Amino acid sequence: MIGVVLVEPEGPANIGMVARTMKNFGFSRLVLVNPNITEESYSYAVHARDVLENAVILEEFDEALELFDLAVGTTGKPGKSYIPDRAPLMPWELRETLEGYPGRAGIFFGRESIGLKNNELAGMDFTVTIPTSDDYPVMNLAQAVAVILYELSRRRPEPAVEALKPATRREREKLVETWAGLLEVLNYPKDVERREIFVKIFGRLVGRAVLYGREVHTLIGPLRKARIKLEECPDAER
Amino acid sequence: MIGVVLVEPEGPANIGMVARTMKNFGFSRLVLVNPNITEESYSYAVHARDVLENAVILEEFDEALELFDLAVGTTGKPGKSYIPDRAPLMPWELRETLEGYPGRAGIFFGRESIGLKNNELAGMDFTVTIPTSDDYPVMNLAQAVAVILYELSRRRPEPAVEALKPATRREREKLVETWAGLLEVLNYPKDVERREIFVKIFGRLVGRAVLYGREVHTLIGPLRKARIKLEECPDAER
Repeated sequence: MIGVVLVEPEGPANIGMVARTMKNFGFSRLVLVNPNITEESYSYAVHARDVLENAVILEEFDEALELFDLAVGTTGKPGKSYIPDRAPLMPWELRETLEGYPGRAGIFFGRESIGLKNNELAGMDFTVTIPTSDDYPVMNLAQAVAVILYELSRRRPEPAVEALKPATRREREKLVETWAGLLEVLNYPKDVERREIFVKIFGRLVGRAVLYGREVHTLIGPLRKARIKLEECPDAER
Repeated sequence: MIGVVLVEPEGPANIGMVARTMKNFGFSRLVLVNPNITEESYSYAVHARDVLENAVILEEFDEALELFDLAVGTTGKPGKSYIPDRAPLMPWELRETLEGYPGRAGIFFGRESIGLKNNELAGMDFTVTIPTSDDYPVMNLAQAVAVILYELSRRRPEPAVEALKPATRREREKLVETWAGLLEVLNYPKDVERREIFVKIFGRLVGRAVLYGREVHTLIGPLRKARIKLEECPDAER
């Protein structure tokens, strides 16, 4: 179980937006420490009122620590002295670290103004930071939560339909062979080495485009049809 | 260069939060189509006023398309009927696709209420979606932007060292027109609606493959040649 802890969030709207983001990414366990929660929070939660209604509201930071087996602090100030011997994880490293973790992990987010205090960070098992620009490293709270939860929930949804099966290597090869066949019947380009280059370029295009099986067949059809018609055609010019 | 395009954003605060997120992740090119921008937008941008001040403000969606070589649409409704034959990319696939792309790529975000319209999505080279929970798939606009830019900035595209020029929109359109012309002379598929789908699929392949100008010409050549030869050909069958 992964929970989100907001420590003394100052903006009512942010609390609501965090609840919404949690529901967007399939999280439901929200802990609020001494929050400035108002009716505005509920309005910003939109269809995630339930996340707010089920939130655990606490007065003291230490009580929040008690709820989790593992405490992960977020910080926008990597490399500072409070955790001298440990650089913060990147979000994707956090995902790897928590993958399959069977306990209760809490991701702690600090106040909008000053983040987590040093004594709060000292209670964390480790920290995570979102890599941002030096020009403007401080993110909005709800957006930072969105990025972390996106990363933690990252997985590819199963393709809904059979049609969306990726093209096999064989299907892709067949498409390139069909292209090569068309160039051959056209005798174009005349120079055989150039013709091979044309085929190679087509092959790279097919590789890069990440095709689905059905798409391959949609492309092969007209190319093969053209070749057959050209072969049938009495050719004066070729 | 990667730009962010907001199409008819409805919330002034969201515009500001998007500007802030852009600066957080090192992006500066913002295009606003018919935006509801107010002093509140500037206040929510906090230290990213400069991003708003330098934003390009347009009245029409089509003008925004002209600013980019590659248009990427965002959608929260994957698998719906407007693109029946092609699933959107995941954000990390978008990063891989754009890596090293030397042209101007625009990431288009729709209105908070209804997203991008179908005719707008039709103008995109491909789409991207953030995988979210079925319980509540609709994200806040600024948070969706945060997730996409976070992912794209994980490794910034290198500026082109080589003299390879990306295909322009016009070059890519010409390639797709050439494909359409071949299908027409082949009268294949016979059903006109199906033929249009075949052309669409080809168009999206071209969009996804991130072609260089030179490659486009290598592909147009044989297709045009085949068309011309087929037109010259006395056709018994057609």
